[in-house]
Amino acid sequence: MKIWEKGFSVNDKIEKFTVGQDRELDLYLAPFDMQASKAQARMLASIGLISKEEESQLLQGLDELLAQVEAGNFQIELEFEDVHSKIEHYLTEKYGDAGKKIHTARSRNDQVLTAIQLFIKDYCEQIGGKVLALAELLLQQGERYKDALLPGYTHFQAAMPSSFGLWFGAYAEHLLLDMHLLEAARAVADRNPLGSGAGFGSSFAIDREQTTRDMGFGQVAVSAVGAQLLRGKTEKTLAFAIAGVAGTLSKLAYDLVLYNSQDLGFVLLPKEFTTGSSIMPHKKNPDVFELVRAHCNRLQALPNDIILTINNLPSGYHRDFQILKEILFRPMVQFADILDILLFAVPALQVVPGVINQPKYDAIFSVENINQLIQQGVPFRDAYKQVGQAVDSDSYQPHKEFSTSHLGSVHNPGLGVLQERLAATRARLPWARE
Amino acid sequence: MKIWEKGFSVNDKIEKFTVGQDRELDLYLAPFDMQASKAQARMLASIGLISKEEESQLLQGLDELLAQVEAGNFQIELEFEDVHSKIEHYLTEKYGDAGKKIHTARSRNDQVLTAIQLFIKDYCEQIGGKVLALAELLLQQGERYKDALLPGYTHFQAAMPSSFGLWFGAYAEHLLLDMHLLEAARAVADRNPLGSGAGFGSSFAIDREQTTRDMGFGQVAVSAVGAQLLRGKTEKTLAFAIAGVAGTLSKLAYDLVLYNSQDLGFVLLPKEFTTGSSIMPHKKNPDVFELVRAHCNRLQALPNDIILTINNLPSGYHRDFQILKEILFRPMVQFADILDILLFAVPALQVVPGVINQPKYDAIFSVENINQLIQQGVPFRDAYKQVGQAVDSDSYQPHKEFSTSHLGSVHNPGLGVLQERLAATRARLPWARE
Amino acid sequence: MKIWEKGFSVNDKIEKFTVGQDRELDLYLAPFDMQASKAQARMLASIGLISKEEESQLLQGLDELLAQVEAGNFQIELEFEDVHSKIEHYLTEKYGDAGKKIHTARSRNDQVLTAIQLFIKDYCEQIGGKVLALAELLLQQGERYKDALLPGYTHFQAAMPSSFGLWFGAYAEHLLLDMHLLEAARAVADRNPLGSGAGFGSSFAIDREQTTRDMGFGQVAVSAVGAQLLRGKTEKTLAFAIAGVAGTLSKLAYDLVLYNSQDLGFVLLPKEFTTGSSIMPHKKNPDVFELVRAHCNRLQALPNDIILTINNLPSGYHRDFQILKEILFRPMVQFADILDILLFAVPALQVVPGVINQPKYDAIFSVENINQLIQQGVPFRDAYKQVGQAVDSDSYQPHKEFSTSHLGSVHNPGLGVLQERLAATRARLPWARE
Amino acid sequence: MKIWEKGFSVNDKIEKFTVGQDRELDLYLAPFDMQASKAQARMLASIGLISKEEESQLLQGLDELLAQVEAGNFQIELEFEDVHSKIEHYLTEKYGDAGKKIHTARSRNDQVLTAIQLFIKDYCEQIGGKVLALAELLLQQGERYKDALLPGYTHFQAAMPSSFGLWFGAYAEHLLLDMHLLEAARAVADRNPLGSGAGFGSSFAIDREQTTRDMGFGQVAVSAVGAQLLRGKTEKTLAFAIAGVAGTLSKLAYDLVLYNSQDLGFVLLPKEFTTGSSIMPHKKNPDVFELVRAHCNRLQALPNDIILTINNLPSGYHRDFQILKEILFRPMVQFADILDILLFAVPALQVVPGVINQPKYDAIFSVENINQLIQQGVPFRDAYKQVGQAVDSDSYQPHKEFSTSHLGSVHNPGLGVLQERLAATRARLPWARE
Repeated sequence: MKIWEKGFSVNDKIEKFTVGQDRELDLYLAPFDMQASKAQARMLASIGLISKEEESQLLQGLDELLAQVEAGNFQIELEFEDVHSKIEHYLTEKYGDAGKKIHTARSRNDQVLTAIQLFIKDYCEQIGGKVLALAELLLQQGERYKDALLPGYTHFQAAMPSSFGLWFGAYAEHLLLDMHLLEAARAVADRNPLGSGAGFGSSFAIDREQTTRDMGFGQVAVSAVGAQLLRGKTEKTLAFAIAGVAGTLSKLAYDLVLYNSQDLGFVLLPKEFTTGSSIMPHKKNPDVFELVRAHCNRLQALPNDIILTINNLPSGYHRDFQILKEILFRPMVQFADILDILLFAVPALQVVPGVINQPKYDAIFSVENINQLIQQGVPFRDAYKQVGQAVDSDSYQPHKEFSTSHLGSVHNPGLGVLQERLAATRARLPWARE
Repeated sequence: MKIWEKGFSVNDKIEKFTVGQDRELDLYLAPFDMQASKAQARMLASIGLISKEEESQLLQGLDELLAQVEAGNFQIELEFEDVHSKIEHYLTEKYGDAGKKIHTARSRNDQVLTAIQLFIKDYCEQIGGKVLALAELLLQQGERYKDALLPGYTHFQAAMPSSFGLWFGAYAEHLLLDMHLLEAARAVADRNPLGSGAGFGSSFAIDREQTTRDMGFGQVAVSAVGAQLLRGKTEKTLAFAIAGVAGTLSKLAYDLVLYNSQDLGFVLLPKEFTTGSSIMPHKKNPDVFELVRAHCNRLQALPNDIILTINNLPSGYHRDFQILKEILFRPMVQFADILDILLFAVPALQVVPGVINQPKYDAIFSVENINQLIQQGVPFRDAYKQVGQAVDSDSYQPHKEFSTSHLGSVHNPGLGVLQERLAATRARLPWARE
Repeated sequence: MKIWEKGFSVNDKIEKFTVGQDRELDLYLAPFDMQASKAQARMLASIGLISKEEESQLLQGLDELLAQVEAGNFQIELEFEDVHSKIEHYLTEKYGDAGKKIHTARSRNDQVLTAIQLFIKDYCEQIGGKVLALAELLLQQGERYKDALLPGYTHFQAAMPSSFGLWFGAYAEHLLLDMHLLEAARAVADRNPLGSGAGFGSSFAIDREQTTRDMGFGQVAVSAVGAQLLRGKTEKTLAFAIAGVAGTLSKLAYDLVLYNSQDLGFVLLPKEFTTGSSIMPHKKNPDVFELVRAHCNRLQALPNDIILTINNLPSGYHRDFQILKEILFRPMVQFADILDILLFAVPALQVVPGVINQPKYDAIFSVENINQLIQQGVPFRDAYKQVGQAVDSDSYQPHKEFSTSHLGSVHNPGLGVLQERLAATRARLPWARE
Repeated sequence: MKIWEKGFSVNDKIEKFTVGQDRELDLYLAPFDMQASKAQARMLASIGLISKEEESQLLQGLDELLAQVEAGNFQIELEFEDVHSKIEHYLTEKYGDAGKKIHTARSRNDQVLTAIQLFIKDYCEQIGGKVLALAELLLQQGERYKDALLPGYTHFQAAMPSSFGLWFGAYAEHLLLDMHLLEAARAVADRNPLGSGAGFGSSFAIDREQTTRDMGFGQVAVSAVGAQLLRGKTEKTLAFAIAGVAGTLSKLAYDLVLYNSQDLGFVLLPKEFTTGSSIMPHKKNPDVFELVRAHCNRLQALPNDIILTINNLPSGYHRDFQILKEILFRPMVQFADILDILLFAVPALQVVPGVINQPKYDAIFSVENINQLIQQGVPFRDAYKQVGQAVDSDSYQPHKEFSTSHLGSVHNPGLGVLQERLAATRARLPWARE
């Protein structure tokens, strides 16, 4: 059954092409479409477009379907082109006219949109919790290793002493920053488009505020034309947020892959996180982190994938939007998997103590030598030249005993301040689910 | 003078290549670098690293330079590789040792970062004001033309009656949504990296909270390593925000270009906004809106330009970051120009009345015919089939008298609700400058 | 069985993450890996590293597997991490030591690379044939409709008379141009990396020219380091080629969607190529072409997806490359499907005659009026002004009788010349399979 | 003077916006537009649309302008919106009616297109020569350092012995591969669009084959509609080619930055190619190669910038195309500069001998140990396990004396074969200018 079928048969090849991956991907939307249909049924009853009995039938039918989803046996059979046809068919088969009336004052356009809004909002809340949990683990590792020094690099060159307190703290701090984009993504998803119909509203006196409250949306998407403009935009904004976090995690993984090399050797990855080579028995490759990096890099291309697909289309629905599901849904799952892997991996990271004491890193203490001279009253530029000449003429002696005190420095990485910010972020974003 | 010069001369070609466009682009950063240097001088004095007299000299010198910027005669001469060298040279030439001490407990890495944070934060505030002002103008036009109907399109096909109230309201509503990304961009820029030095802090007992307050930053970027990770991330987050607004404006422009065609003819663009053809005297091309669209599309590529440049580099400074300036700064200016053009153009748009009455649009009232049947008790699916058969057999009579009442519908576009949201957004984001 | 297993068990979650979609995606590579393994076996025998009998056993085992692929019952069971493990296991189970020797002087790195090179080269040849066949169909439609005029548009505005001969010819001509990128993609895939091992060759005296001839590669990828650099580059170059063709097809589809609208109405799409609306019975939406457009737009993002994943990694293998398979393989299949749909759809397109005679298009003949004046000796600029004034003062009379003669003009679209170019392209690229 | 001016004045702000950067960027096109205008003048005379005397006047005027370009004093003054207006004005001012006739049977659309085709074709030829010259220098360095061994890396881990012969050869080989994309770019640029007018040809009996020969184009762009489709496509194809080479050079630069680090130390960069730090006197940063990498990464975003700008526009000219000039022209210049820097830098690279003998690299000889066992008849998988156990139990002794013989291996990097391929490429692409 296809909703729009009007008597002519459509070539099989074309049907396969137009259905695409909907039967599989719509499973992600199924519970949200059922939730929205329940809101729709209640609202239709409250404005008298369906009877109380019809409302009960529809709610019961939808609860039956939700139970199937819960039990893992909900299916979209081959005779249905998508989840929406399937649900309407089920309700009509079982409850007759009530089923036929569920689509009153609704179009597939606002129906899909509503399910996607609910799905993405829910996803933001789930991901937000994972990101904050990861920040917390990073802060714990920072606390554990705050006194372990490592050379800090600039230009891929050992530059100055750094510490793992600074390093772990840095990534925790950036995950907190990344929450701002996730907050924006959730805000865009938190608008109710139901009732915008095909994009121009309807002449029924529907109550859009009721469905907004019913589904827990923050606000109604007011203009019917504007509601349709959410399609693609909600996905894009989520993609920006995912790309933001992914950029942070890609860099974290890159550092770890590098720090795990024989040449640096700053961290130890437990055996379970490495794999071997098919021909080199000595290798313990950091594949898990390479794959985290690769996926996170690919996820940073997601916004562009979406923009290229939806760009330069005038307002109003286009069938092009259908493929946003295949562009976005699987990467969403992959991204959640990556966060799970890291929630598992980060606490298992071990830092190698004492690496900074290798003679090859002596020169990175030169700034401390300069600072000593400054403390003795030599202007910075003169001290800089003096130490530079010592380095060039091999008369340089590293000043390894140094201590720092300012916030965010080697010996005061500010992990407590970051703990407070984590707590404040949790308070600001109570929707983030742990 | 190049700060890092240590006696060997660098080939001219290489110098030209490494300096790149810094002398020109750093002019955008100049006032912010001076502001940050003043904060640095005050802080150095407060912790006793420079004397009160030196502080006065530095503040005076920096105010002299700020006055040059204000007067439009600040220059970075060819002997300087960037604005930072120029400023330090000026202070040293004029005030001797005081000038030599300004760079104490600071590196060029945190210096550049701080100026960029200030610059981008300021830009967000300026852009935010323009976006809200544009939303207001769109709402005014929506109010003016709220009763003008036009065919609403889906699949590039005339679908259902719509109104310019809905259409203008839609874009205003979406600009408000786009503010969430701009809010995220400003939040990332609102962190003070000064004192993170080359990326690993310093052993001076500097007071980073003081400089944070002095420059008006919301928070200190705690971890020195994390502070350096802002480079590229602040730019990227701004690019996301610009891309968000640009996506909305590109679609607005696309609609207008289409609505201005002879085939649709829904809007009139004043002569001043069109240009002619070199060979076709009848043409009045919507070039301004085509260029707005093109620039806004190109701006949507900006996040990717930045990500490709900074991706897969480990933590710590890399010279690669230098070219972020040429990637971002000019497009920032272009984007502000586009907003200005639209602030100028939107109030001049005129809507053509009565377009919906053309017979070619009769079929778009079919949903109203269906709804009439539903009101008479026919289930939706049956009514749909009945009207579909009438359309196919040419017996269809459009039901043109219809009225809608729900929020966001043709006759109730909800412009008042959107006005309230605009006011609430202004209250939530007081930093947006008008 | 995992090739690199050395005694420690790997956490299930991590194994699932690292295996990813390999078991499914490697099915595309299976026949090519078997072909390459046969070449490897023959070469190992010819240099004496395995016996003639072992060679026979290996060839027989690989032929058995190829027969499974042919019959559609080859599988990669859950105990194997990829196709390579599965094949080696099969050979070892069945033929003992011979199976254990197949990996001599080979690494998984060059093994995967070789299979990918063969796969992509084969794909280029298949796609090349489809693109040329589509060009031929477009030329046939151009011939059929060469006298049908339509308004030509610039700036979305009706501008000058055009013809469907020009329009169909344009797209055929561009598909021929797009073959240049496909040629480049095939050239990059036509290098044999087998024998480059993990990326640094081997100390066995293998004969890489022999395997090059055996597998039909045009040239050996000489440097072992360079051979490994093919990973990602072959994929990227194919993505450029796909993006090139997709850009052409996206525009073709866009034109058709627009030409099918009620406002323009220049083409008729057969019922089988359209779908209806769930609420608007009068709609016959051009969904097939919208989906072609959407997929082709998304395919244009493919190069960027690949570049972001592989960029800024130093030379040598990285596990990151694994996910290139999931980035590329499914879109490759989708792209072939799109070409198939168009090979089916293009001959079914019907052009609506006489559309240019509608009064709303009168002004597009103004250039002909100008040209008449020029023929009478008026300089171009003066004629332009004269006709422009007539248009502005409504005294303009369209000069509808006109005829053009130059190559590529309305009445001489040059389809014969394009037919010759198609034939020449086929002769130049004999590998393109019909 | 604006060609399309018809009496109403255009607001200054809008004019500034629509002119954009044309006055500056059109200087790149100036000589090519003059060349095309000469071809146009000769053709107009040959078909009798202008007199022989007018032809002479136009050719003389255009030669005067070409001489200005040659002398570096050609300018586009503020009263002209672009180079085309300027040229026509010059000819009209100086030669009256002849100047007014130059635009006969031509539109600005095909005029700009023709100049861009000529410009990009010329650029491909210039760049092609530089790329081949760089390949040659890399082969020379490979020859010089072919016996210098270094550890080969996979997964950022030291894996197996490699050599600088392999390494330099790899990049030379890949530059030759990259020529295939440049060949495609030149082929697309080698089509003559002149005579396609505004995109629909003209009713004058112009001779497009004559102008094709006159300007040295390989073929005429046949369909007028197809000719206009070149706008954006030629730019995009060039961007693919630039991105291809840039991808290779980015990786080369990445390797060098990494090899220059204190931890690896495989290469020496001469002082002239490094810069210092503003606070760390011991640093000699590889800034030149970091900037090469950054620019090459940003150039890989160029195709996407172009695609996003031109995508989803129907066939026919749109004003959007104007900004392709600012997207493409400056990066073209930067890319040529990068090639020049590398032509300068590559011969100055020095390799550090003996790095492979450090004990930390002992394990990378394990594959040689395995191969020894295989030579003694042990099957590969058994030998692999045996050596793996030795490594794990610390009883492993590296087998450092090894020699390889196959093409593309450590001791036979195949530089001679690559020299032959370079020569063959030069013969195949005689247009590449040295």
